[in-house]
Amino acid sequence: MSFSLPNYLESKRLKVEKGLMEVFKNPGDCPKVLWESMKYSIFAGGKRLRPVLCLASAEAVGLPEKSALRIACALELIHTYSLIHDDLPALDNDDYRRGRKTNHKVYGEAMAILAGDGLLTLAFQWLSDPSAYPTKCQKNLAKVNYELAWHAGYPGMVGGQVDDVISEKKRPNLAKVFSIHRRKTGALLISSTRLPALLAGADPKKVKALTEYGKAAGLAFQIVDDILNEVGDSKKLGKAAGSDRERGKMTYPAAIGLERSKKEVKLLTDKAVSALKVFGSKGQPLEALVRHMAERTY
Amino acid sequence: MSFSLPNYLESKRLKVEKGLMEVFKNPGDCPKVLWESMKYSIFAGGKRLRPVLCLASAEAVGLPEKSALRIACALELIHTYSLIHDDLPALDNDDYRRGRKTNHKVYGEAMAILAGDGLLTLAFQWLSDPSAYPTKCQKNLAKVNYELAWHAGYPGMVGGQVDDVISEKKRPNLAKVFSIHRRKTGALLISSTRLPALLAGADPKKVKALTEYGKAAGLAFQIVDDILNEVGDSKKLGKAAGSDRERGKMTYPAAIGLERSKKEVKLLTDKAVSALKVFGSKGQPLEALVRHMAERTY
Repeated sequence: MSFSLPNYLESKRLKVEKGLMEVFKNPGDCPKVLWESMKYSIFAGGKRLRPVLCLASAEAVGLPEKSALRIACALELIHTYSLIHDDLPALDNDDYRRGRKTNHKVYGEAMAILAGDGLLTLAFQWLSDPSAYPTKCQKNLAKVNYELAWHAGYPGMVGGQVDDVISEKKRPNLAKVFSIHRRKTGALLISSTRLPALLAGADPKKVKALTEYGKAAGLAFQIVDDILNEVGDSKKLGKAAGSDRERGKMTYPAAIGLERSKKEVKLLTDKAVSALKVFGSKGQPLEALVRHMAERTY
Repeated sequence: MSFSLPNYLESKRLKVEKGLMEVFKNPGDCPKVLWESMKYSIFAGGKRLRPVLCLASAEAVGLPEKSALRIACALELIHTYSLIHDDLPALDNDDYRRGRKTNHKVYGEAMAILAGDGLLTLAFQWLSDPSAYPTKCQKNLAKVNYELAWHAGYPGMVGGQVDDVISEKKRPNLAKVFSIHRRKTGALLISSTRLPALLAGADPKKVKALTEYGKAAGLAFQIVDDILNEVGDSKKLGKAAGSDRERGKMTYPAAIGLERSKKEVKLLTDKAVSALKVFGSKGQPLEALVRHMAERTY
């Protein structure tokens, strides 16, 4: 039976949706409006890229799916909180995301800030419950928590977001845009592929391979995002094409032009694929995923 | 030699300051403005109540001080992030705290939101690094992470903050104000006393005693806060007395009056002290601490 990426994506996405529904099964005594505000953004039709990469990496190293889903959901909770806060009036001031009103347009600024805080904290709560894992994984759990926080925090995503904000309208240069992408989106994508290997206690060679893969695939993904914002279809994107240029955002096309950006995506895709060698045929879904990420049009 | 609370407080506070300086020793490639914004609020002259309670609880159960300081700093990072976000224009819109400008008044709203996000994430990074702990504590680390996230998130602090916001200007009632205090400030105070015991792998009786103590002391602390906001000295408080009443905040004095609130503080203090019996003379600092919290005038 040959490998079908659309089927693979669909089956993984369904698992992620089920995993997230499990996270949001029981509100306990959470204030209703907070619960709804968090759910509004979590179930907003995201591509679930990070969770899918996480599940695919888990398969490559033999981490049980139930454990992998904990990391996958934590990643999506963190990704979602970062979108809510980025969209706030004080930051990007976006009214729409994926064709729907942004969180603060529906629930107000105060609730959007607190829903973001709630989702970020919930990510660590959901990830670090030892009773959710088989014994052999439990001993690696603190380290996984540590690395996730590192990648999500000032050394990673939050730091990249700050650099993105303060670099607006400045003269684009490759070193700076690379540094922003590496942290703002790259850090969480490395987590997606590396953390399942750490939790499984995989051979260091495999941990390294998934780290290299995540690094290259993550940057390729972000450059494609930059390119699509420049030349893509607003309807498909669910947001206004050209908005990066209008805001003076630091992007690859702004720094090195469209053609060189496209070449860079190709080089990075090859690099990601080549890192997968150590997995043999088990690396097939990850290979198909990075090619898909590089060739997407939305 | 008799026990001196002022000396004890001073020596613990110094340790906490040193611990926090260790957290902020190396910015790596963190954007300068983010680093400064986080430090501005961390080193803003806070009382360090949560860290001191944590160190005192650690002594009572024999947790090594270096390990306890990790929890203590994580608690202060979380407490500080929550103050930065609470002060934002969309929430309490406060210009001053402890007599200094609030974070967003100095660094702007965008940076204040991101500094809060950075501090919250850093708390989990700082707490969960397994290499910082002796082997016998490492196995309890994930559980400690889990509980901290639980207390800081929607089931605890964030949930309480939301309820506080949506209850403004509503008719005060005891059940509601109790529920807000239990989560908004109580949850993190329980963490302060309970988590050192969990990390040490202490006897369940001692874990329970410190949980009871933290619960009673935390509520007493918050009621005193309510009372001081009503009758205290603005200069000593570092913020305007009467501000709760002006905003229609749900407080103990608003719900049950000043006299009953004071009685409640006394009852809770006795309850906290009585929970300490199991520690014998080792409970002395914690006893002095809760009495001090109940009798403070600022």
